Amino acid sequence: MTQNTFSKVSEYIKQNEQRYIEKLRDAVAIPSVSGDINRRADVFKMGKWLVDEMQRLNITIKQHLPGKHMMDGVEAELPPIIMGSYGSDEKKKTVLVYGHYDVQPALLSDGWNTDPWTLVEKEGKLYGRGSTDDKAPVISWLWVIEAHQKLGLDMPVNVLMCFEGMEESGSEGLDDLIHSESTKFFKTADCVCISDNYWLGTTKPCLTYGLRGVSYFQISIKGPGKDLHSGLFGGAVHEPMTDLVLLLSKLVTPEGKILVPSIYDDVAPVTEAEEKMYETLDFSFKDVHNATESTNTIHKTEKELLMARWRYPSLSLHGIEGAFYSSGAKTVIPAKVIGKFSIRSVPNQDPARLTQIVTDYVNSEFKKLNSKNVIGIECLHEGKAWLADVNDWNFRSAATAIEKVFGVKPDMTREGGSIPVTLTFQEALQKSVLLLPMGRSDDGAHSTNEKHRPVHCVRNTKGADFPPNFPEVETTIEKGTLQHLEAYSGFKGEEKDLNSILKKLKIKRVFIVGFCTEYCVKATAVDSLSNGFETLVITDLICPVNKLNEEVVFTEMKGCGLKLIESF
Amino acid sequence: MTQNTFSKVSEYIKQNEQRYIEKLRDAVAIPSVSGDINRRADVFKMGKWLVDEMQRLNITIKQHLPGKHMMDGVEAELPPIIMGSYGSDEKKKTVLVYGHYDVQPALLSDGWNTDPWTLVEKEGKLYGRGSTDDKAPVISWLWVIEAHQKLGLDMPVNVLMCFEGMEESGSEGLDDLIHSESTKFFKTADCVCISDNYWLGTTKPCLTYGLRGVSYFQISIKGPGKDLHSGLFGGAVHEPMTDLVLLLSKLVTPEGKILVPSIYDDVAPVTEAEEKMYETLDFSFKDVHNATESTNTIHKTEKELLMARWRYPSLSLHGIEGAFYSSGAKTVIPAKVIGKFSIRSVPNQDPARLTQIVTDYVNSEFKKLNSKNVIGIECLHEGKAWLADVNDWNFRSAATAIEKVFGVKPDMTREGGSIPVTLTFQEALQKSVLLLPMGRSDDGAHSTNEKHRPVHCVRNTKGADFPPNFPEVETTIEKGTLQHLEAYSGFKGEEKDLNSILKKLKIKRVFIVGFCTEYCVKATAVDSLSNGFETLVITDLICPVNKLNEEVVFTEMKGCGLKLIESF
Repeated sequence: MTQNTFSKVSEYIKQNEQRYIEKLRDAVAIPSVSGDINRRADVFKMGKWLVDEMQRLNITIKQHLPGKHMMDGVEAELPPIIMGSYGSDEKKKTVLVYGHYDVQPALLSDGWNTDPWTLVEKEGKLYGRGSTDDKAPVISWLWVIEAHQKLGLDMPVNVLMCFEGMEESGSEGLDDLIHSESTKFFKTADCVCISDNYWLGTTKPCLTYGLRGVSYFQISIKGPGKDLHSGLFGGAVHEPMTDLVLLLSKLVTPEGKILVPSIYDDVAPVTEAEEKMYETLDFSFKDVHNATESTNTIHKTEKELLMARWRYPSLSLHGIEGAFYSSGAKTVIPAKVIGKFSIRSVPNQDPARLTQIVTDYVNSEFKKLNSKNVIGIECLHEGKAWLADVNDWNFRSAATAIEKVFGVKPDMTREGGSIPVTLTFQEALQKSVLLLPMGRSDDGAHSTNEKHRPVHCVRNTKGADFPPNFPEVETTIEKGTLQHLEAYSGFKGEEKDLNSILKKLKIKRVFIVGFCTEYCVKATAVDSLSNGFETLVITDLICPVNKLNEEVVFTEMKGCGLKLIESF
Repeated sequence: MTQNTFSKVSEYIKQNEQRYIEKLRDAVAIPSVSGDINRRADVFKMGKWLVDEMQRLNITIKQHLPGKHMMDGVEAELPPIIMGSYGSDEKKKTVLVYGHYDVQPALLSDGWNTDPWTLVEKEGKLYGRGSTDDKAPVISWLWVIEAHQKLGLDMPVNVLMCFEGMEESGSEGLDDLIHSESTKFFKTADCVCISDNYWLGTTKPCLTYGLRGVSYFQISIKGPGKDLHSGLFGGAVHEPMTDLVLLLSKLVTPEGKILVPSIYDDVAPVTEAEEKMYETLDFSFKDVHNATESTNTIHKTEKELLMARWRYPSLSLHGIEGAFYSSGAKTVIPAKVIGKFSIRSVPNQDPARLTQIVTDYVNSEFKKLNSKNVIGIECLHEGKAWLADVNDWNFRSAATAIEKVFGVKPDMTREGGSIPVTLTFQEALQKSVLLLPMGRSDDGAHSTNEKHRPVHCVRNTKGADFPPNFPEVETTIEKGTLQHLEAYSGFKGEEKDLNSILKKLKIKRVFIVGFCTEYCVKATAVDSLSNGFETLVITDLICPVNKLNEEVVFTEMKGCGLKLIESF
């Protein structure tokens, strides 16, 4: 894509931003919850919506109905896997894009501030279930195609698409489809691009080249034939909870060290190249502390922390089935309890070996207890870790594209979690797969108040330009270009000190204009005032993210001593 | 009570047995579930039913309405505590009887074989919610009074009554009432008799003189501000579940030894007299194995087992709030988890000291973990252990009465559980309290298929007599009089060997008559046949517990080779 093409596309996108938001609003309004049998019709409706948009763009479509399945005791039709094909120029590379159009459940009563099915714009963010996981990422691919069509530009690549409607509920039928279409509809794919994960932090895009696997275990301990009263039988019988808790306590230390013997033996060693990649990442403890709403991280350095998340195995205890779990007090001796834990595995750990050593260890620890209870241990599901080569052409192309748009080299990241479809695509197509995240780490996918945050004022894009009729500019102070030095205020966020510059120029009075009223404008104005400048905000040359905020922000600014005027 | 009076009362009771069963049927049909706000009207209805019966017997009644309380977010009126007084002869002792007319919840879908609110007679047992806990025990006191009235006999004691309707839901208002009425309505009480627990086994009545106390604790561990995804954060943060499970594992061993330092220091020593009482108890491992539906008892001897239940403290882990608890797999790192456990305390353990040493121990163990999570520990409720003197006059009188009715000295038992009202009565009235159980250990109070089993063929009662016109009896073989040698069959259950006696008399042919067709008659007839006698069952001189069983049993008996004839 030439610089000229890029500028045209960027400008078109900027001009159409509000329309894209309205499209996302339409998509979010369809509660396509795949895990709720009562919402199944909405999943189909969302699939239909997507097909309609794709047809409008002359994308060749093939729909696959995987058949029926059982959910909550009801037999139901699985929603279609929608395949699309746009362009078949043999001189171009062909990118296969994956995403999903179903979403997680959401209830206002879960703790949402606004109706999850109504897209709400607030503070420059777009709140709504599915906004970031995965509706915006999926439909963004369509708008890129649309922009090229409207501008009469040729797309630089052929695009294949694979959009499923059951991702949040086990992706039923997807693996089979990928394998069977690998020699048909997906035959021409040169690489795969998964659009369903998140940046490492909140400011810098990334490309993801590795995922941990997961092996999920449960230990069951069976004692009495029925739950007992602890008054009547406490002290008389071997209690399953006592045994289970002891076994679970032998699995992992409070520092996260897994106690299963030999489990670290086959973990891939750290290479020099890998070590280097950790140095430039947009990541600080603050990101994890914000995301976890706490400061209880284990490690001393960011690198250690990221390695623990990405490239070393971890073991988490999830809970116990069969025991008392409500608030209050119940004096029960549970008859049968099932402890749940999972191990996040890494390259080169083999899931079968993992299951074997965990089973052997738990059984040998149980023997030491001399309990008359009966133990069972099983692996509920297992998935291998995945690792790609960041030197593949698709990674290099994606990195170049990101640098063009965002003015910054992307982070090369791995993920602690698992996205099984990644491995399936790689194994079925034998092509390089990369993950191209569009959401940020704090978007709250699967959580309450999920949001998507479109970028604005991105360097080298129309949105960051001065307006066409802006007076001649003498000095430009850029902010937010340095990693770890971010701020709303023009007086902060940059090595150059605006305050000193203005003082040196003996400036007494500062006029403030720009975007956005609630954040950058307000913060800059307040700092200006506190630095001793008479500060005037020109209210018809600023713009809020949300018009509804304007009155409140104006009042706040006046309260600070700022003068609000109109342009003349 | 003279032997003559006793015989009259016994005979009256036997004659009226079916009417008593019908009364219990009426009571069971009222689903007086105090823990279900939607059943509150039924609790009041049950109270009214009881008051009507008491009024019919000229019992002086005082009802106390404790006021309102909140349940499930609804304000509701608490059901009345019904006080009754029958007789005020100063020359007689006055017995204060306690029981409750509310019941546990019950749904057919919980696993009941029949509708819980319809009394069903089966195999000599009366199935229905509340049948044994506590409706039959409560109304039995009324039938004793009624029998004396109908027979024109004087009651040997004055009776005070205290029947509450909130026992299954915290006995709200009861403690206050007992304290305030201790100098008024309950002023004349000479002793208290609690009718709300169970025999040690299933064959021999008991009197209960001790209860363990209970201190219920919860340890909360708070880590992240919200639940985390174990893929994203596993290995990065201190997980509250890891810490909690480690702490819980430090509380008790699989053999039931409590690990809190110095907890055994103030346990009352075993006296010689106490040790002796364990020798004659109607108890075997089989009772616990049946009740717990397993064989996972800890101890080697029955005495050790009972001491562990009654007179030594025990610690049970009940469950974890805040963690994953369903079936299936969820890869959550729970943000805050609360471990629940309780200690059954014994004489002379002081609950305040218990809370102190447990808190200190848990906090010191948590410090060793070097976790950044935050711990909290609290005692949710505590109740002291209770112990009475079995040499008090009321215990001696009760033992004499039981021996008269059942022909056997009662077991002197303690309970592992807590019945807080026991301690309240003792402290408020300063009178000796005893527990007089009417149900058996396998009655299933609080469980599915709760039942009450009225006694039949009790020695020295009308029910055990030969019928009036029975032919002259040459030899009597009694069965079921020896502890641990119980049987339905007349050829078993006794040291005398009926088989040898008959063989010696050269008897070839045995005619069988009696009660009950399904059990004793069938078992005796089958044994007779297998001992080589020609065996004839006289079908019009036998009687089943349940008429509905008759056809099936007749077919079974014929299938065994038994001859069924009619009397001539």
